[in-house]
Amino acid sequence: MSAINRQIRLASRPVGDVRPEDWEHAAVPAEEPGEGQFAGRTRFVSLDPAMRGWLDDRPSYLPPVGIGEVMRAGSVVEVTASNHPGYSPGDFVVGTFGVQEHVVSDGRGATKIDPSLAPPSTCLGALGMPGMTAYFGLLDVGALKEGETVVVSGAAGAVGTMVGQIAKIKGCRVVGIAGGPEKCALLTDELGFDAAIDYRAGDIRRALREQTPDGIDVYFDNVGGEILDAALTRLAMHARVVICGAISQYNNETPVQGPSNYLTLLVRRARMEGFVVFDYAKRYAQAAQEIAGWIGEGRIKVKEHVVKGPWTTSPRPCRCSSAARTPASWCWNWPDRRPDARPRGLRGGPAPSRGGPPRRDGARARLRPCRG
Amino acid sequence: MSAINRQIRLASRPVGDVRPEDWEHAAVPAEEPGEGQFAGRTRFVSLDPAMRGWLDDRPSYLPPVGIGEVMRAGSVVEVTASNHPGYSPGDFVVGTFGVQEHVVSDGRGATKIDPSLAPPSTCLGALGMPGMTAYFGLLDVGALKEGETVVVSGAAGAVGTMVGQIAKIKGCRVVGIAGGPEKCALLTDELGFDAAIDYRAGDIRRALREQTPDGIDVYFDNVGGEILDAALTRLAMHARVVICGAISQYNNETPVQGPSNYLTLLVRRARMEGFVVFDYAKRYAQAAQEIAGWIGEGRIKVKEHVVKGPWTTSPRPCRCSSAARTPASWCWNWPDRRPDARPRGLRGGPAPSRGGPPRRDGARARLRPCRG
Repeated sequence: MSAINRQIRLASRPVGDVRPEDWEHAAVPAEEPGEGQFAGRTRFVSLDPAMRGWLDDRPSYLPPVGIGEVMRAGSVVEVTASNHPGYSPGDFVVGTFGVQEHVVSDGRGATKIDPSLAPPSTCLGALGMPGMTAYFGLLDVGALKEGETVVVSGAAGAVGTMVGQIAKIKGCRVVGIAGGPEKCALLTDELGFDAAIDYRAGDIRRALREQTPDGIDVYFDNVGGEILDAALTRLAMHARVVICGAISQYNNETPVQGPSNYLTLLVRRARMEGFVVFDYAKRYAQAAQEIAGWIGEGRIKVKEHVVKGPWTTSPRPCRCSSAARTPASWCWNWPDRRPDARPRGLRGGPAPSRGGPPRRDGARARLRPCRG
Repeated sequence: MSAINRQIRLASRPVGDVRPEDWEHAAVPAEEPGEGQFAGRTRFVSLDPAMRGWLDDRPSYLPPVGIGEVMRAGSVVEVTASNHPGYSPGDFVVGTFGVQEHVVSDGRGATKIDPSLAPPSTCLGALGMPGMTAYFGLLDVGALKEGETVVVSGAAGAVGTMVGQIAKIKGCRVVGIAGGPEKCALLTDELGFDAAIDYRAGDIRRALREQTPDGIDVYFDNVGGEILDAALTRLAMHARVVICGAISQYNNETPVQGPSNYLTLLVRRARMEGFVVFDYAKRYAQAAQEIAGWIGEGRIKVKEHVVKGPWTTSPRPCRCSSAARTPASWCWNWPDRRPDARPRGLRGGPAPSRGGPPRRDGARARLRPCRG
């Protein structure tokens, strides 16, 4: 009997906040690897704010996740069987394998992890998409130069913590914008930021004036909205605004709030530029090597929040800013399957759930909605 | 007795549309040139939408014109006397001399016109700031490449007509956005644009979709607002949005409308960049030479609207988009002074006006409000 592949699929397209009922828990027979393929079991799944953007049915850098499809996600899998010469059982591999327990891959878009660099979960954070996003956004798109002033919003997140620490390594003044005293303390006390601004605590424009006396040379924006607008008022001449995301706008049910201070770009001869980290895939390995070196030297501290919990209370596979109470990069440690949770056959057996509604067809079971 | 220098000064700071009473007509004794200076008499004054931006008391690329100060403007003067080795009577000189009849200059910021290139008024249009703005904005900031698709808004204006014609010379597909059938006909029938979109005539997004099947590589924005937002929806990969101005926003009494589609910059890996033409001053001569060559070859058609009229009905020294019914670059041909308009002495004599209110002090006279 083949293994059961538990999956979290998109059940309905959310408008505004994602609700538990927008997800469907399913279980299907796991595929066997064909010639030139390997099979893997999921160990860690990334829980990233960017995933919210993949749910909207509008033109973007990736097509939206389809209704009924396994939710797209970066994950780390452990190879369990292989007909691929490059992979052996026990290898750890990172890729966009989706929120599911078992995967089969021909290796395209997959990267084998060098376990000497860092623990596997780090490949979803500091050495994964968030780390790559910070690295290329700051150094390539932002064209950061030594001695400049860098401001980053969403500063306590997976990308923001890396942006600030890399900018410090590059000899810059770094100001982080985050929500709440806990996150701000993390930035200045643990991660070496020069200053942190709690956007919930008061007048963000005044705080930015105080903390960027020479203006902002690189503003790395993860949030959009009013914070982007405030940062635009402080641009130095020839500043670069790096558009990485817009967390504040992802759950909007109204049109996106455009930056009404965009004409500062003219006054300050500045530019605003967007990017998508996937374009840098050929340079990931080199960047990961450099970041791993900084981690090894203690110059970058890895902040990870590993969520644990059984399948039936699995986290929502998409974490939105409002829910992000714990800073740093989030991933979900896929639970080891317990024998009593394993369905005893897909043809007429019980659902792979304790407490869920009865399974409705032979290959798919609907479980109790997860608690985010 | 020294000559009388007639001036138009800013009387009050406009909110929204500029009103006639925001201007003050004054007359003061003309200065004599000192050592190393020349004196000139104004022949043409630029009437440019950008001048509206100089009236607002907010941080910009130039300080605002102060209340009571002569309105800032580019102009062409004819040298009348000179103690400067580089200038002789009869020379034509272009510079930011302001809306006044007589100027004295040490030559800083002034450029002697080569009369073999074009008529003097052209140095306020195709060979002046508008031409330089189009040239450097398109080629430097926009990094235009042969075969690309260029869209320009405010296309029938002084800058827009030049942007489109230069882009055609560079082998691009050119679409202009303008208001009204007359302007659109000018673009396609006279100036060689591939297409023109009348933004007043219907759905601008649909028209852009039709006219830019491969997307927009360079969008040269003079207007901001909804047209900028529409153009953002059509960006090609790695597009460049050149922020030159925002005519639609200059008279706003409400906050500037930010581009709510700015996240297309991320999806399309595109950039939005502002610039100020003054930064390119060292390269003006080279650009003017090249543009003059294109004019000589008939590849660029110069569209100028020279306003004439006596001093007492002088045009408003700041032309806003809503008033711009005639396309192309505007300048005011400063009227020859008629004897009956000349005040016969500044201490207690009559005001330099027929029909205006009585002069209120010895050195300044208030004339009848001009008609724009």
